Amino acid sequence: MDGTVPFYGGIEAGGTKWVCAVADAEGGVLTTEVIPTTTPETTIGAAVRFFEDHPPLAALGVGTFGPVDVRPGSPTYGHILATPKPGWANVDVVSPFRAALDVPVRLDTDVNAAALGEWRRGAGAGLGTFVYMTVGTGIGVGAVVNDGLVHGLLHPEFGHIRIPHDPVRDPFAGSCPFHGDCLEGLASGEAMRRRWGRPAEYLDDPSAWELEAEYVALAVMNLTYALSPERIVVGGGVAKHPALLPAVRARLLTLTAGYPGAPVPVGPAAMEEYVTGPSLGDRSGVAGAVELARAARAAPN
Amino acid sequence: MDGTVPFYGGIEAGGTKWVCAVADAEGGVLTTEVIPTTTPETTIGAAVRFFEDHPPLAALGVGTFGPVDVRPGSPTYGHILATPKPGWANVDVVSPFRAALDVPVRLDTDVNAAALGEWRRGAGAGLGTFVYMTVGTGIGVGAVVNDGLVHGLLHPEFGHIRIPHDPVRDPFAGSCPFHGDCLEGLASGEAMRRRWGRPAEYLDDPSAWELEAEYVALAVMNLTYALSPERIVVGGGVAKHPALLPAVRARLLTLTAGYPGAPVPVGPAAMEEYVTGPSLGDRSGVAGAVELARAARAAPN
Repeated sequence: MDGTVPFYGGIEAGGTKWVCAVADAEGGVLTTEVIPTTTPETTIGAAVRFFEDHPPLAALGVGTFGPVDVRPGSPTYGHILATPKPGWANVDVVSPFRAALDVPVRLDTDVNAAALGEWRRGAGAGLGTFVYMTVGTGIGVGAVVNDGLVHGLLHPEFGHIRIPHDPVRDPFAGSCPFHGDCLEGLASGEAMRRRWGRPAEYLDDPSAWELEAEYVALAVMNLTYALSPERIVVGGGVAKHPALLPAVRARLLTLTAGYPGAPVPVGPAAMEEYVTGPSLGDRSGVAGAVELARAARAAPN
Repeated sequence: MDGTVPFYGGIEAGGTKWVCAVADAEGGVLTTEVIPTTTPETTIGAAVRFFEDHPPLAALGVGTFGPVDVRPGSPTYGHILATPKPGWANVDVVSPFRAALDVPVRLDTDVNAAALGEWRRGAGAGLGTFVYMTVGTGIGVGAVVNDGLVHGLLHPEFGHIRIPHDPVRDPFAGSCPFHGDCLEGLASGEAMRRRWGRPAEYLDDPSAWELEAEYVALAVMNLTYALSPERIVVGGGVAKHPALLPAVRARLLTLTAGYPGAPVPVGPAAMEEYVTGPSLGDRSGVAGAVELARAARAAPN
């Protein structure tokens, strides 16, 4: 570190678009660019050029769709693993940036990056145990436990837990190509699109949102009993519908049924604080990617 | 610390019995006594006398049934919270030992203590992310993440997650007084006793164990996708049946369906290493309680 004020780069590398950002020393985002996700060569090339057109970075953080090898020291660190997304399996999303920009690069999953953004700068600030769940095209969870993101052997894939599915109420078999009616197969944006024949943002049928609230409440219940978090932030495109979170809170109160002494808020007011939307809106992921860059500069790996 | 070789005390405070142990400086258990759980006065009094009859301790660790206030600094630290167990709600299981033995006392849940025991001295030794699940009268999970036990706002209550329940295959409504057919309501020893009319240790009907394996495999699947652990140890009385763990492993392979890149063992051999019984047998909990004592001496609170 040479004493000049550093700039940091962050990429939220999603399955449909990449959001690239340059941030100041405190992590405040100065400028962003959105790049469509097409082929690896085109998308990564455009992202490299974005950063080359700005002042030199001190470090870069990448939050990417997965599954991805996030294990520091692994020979395939930064490689997208087996993904159904055409052309992207085994793509290295770290080395091209290291080579072109000559900076430390740290990578995590997109949802872990969003959790980090909300934990450092948003609705999770100051909390010791904190969960961020995204309900969008897919479903994922990033969790903070004992002052760090949960990684484990690779990284959590909470979207693929199994929850109750009543085929009488909901005959839809589920959209997950691997598990059918896992959480993501029942409650993701893709599941809603296939069940109801139109995307979630064009759905107003109250019974559609009541069913969605049931599944999201079951997910929140399982997160509550699994991790005893202090707060659960629900982000992602599907969660933007104004009917969803109030219905999730109401259903969670009923589902948990006042289990005594459990780590569950016991009334509607506490529930408002417990299940919230993201403070950073659509910027949780890119803010977290910048935080990954700040961590990479502090301790390169 | 005055340089003499210390002794440590540990209590596994269960709902039917308390196991008290005195251990040497390395945590090796020297002697144990089993005390039936009756009234708080009688049980706590007998445990105090056990330790008074042995050389002075350097510290005591307690792993107790819950829910219990495990938050250091809380005014009700060490108090059992609302429990259906008659006479035990709001009982302080720490102060009587502090008063009588004049030593630091550290407390955690029984399942967190067992997880700690297996993590420090058993099947979880050396692992960064590790899960211990007990399937006994109840169901609980202790998890190690980022080099510490998961506590969160209070402590996890994983037994109360919701999993799929097919009422055609299993018409039993569940035994949980709060949630009916949550995991514990479907798969605990109490659930088996009520569903089949006899305790699990007297059940040999293969369909009973096939159903039990289904529920335990769903729990292990959800733990896998929630935490990406390196190993899941399944202990407790129900898990002692020789048919259970092999059936759980086989079912888990089918349920996870080879989800690509996910943190799931991909073959039967890896599965044998992934889902195992406890190395310490019935001693996981008391070994963990002794580890709590060692931690209490190192950093009293």
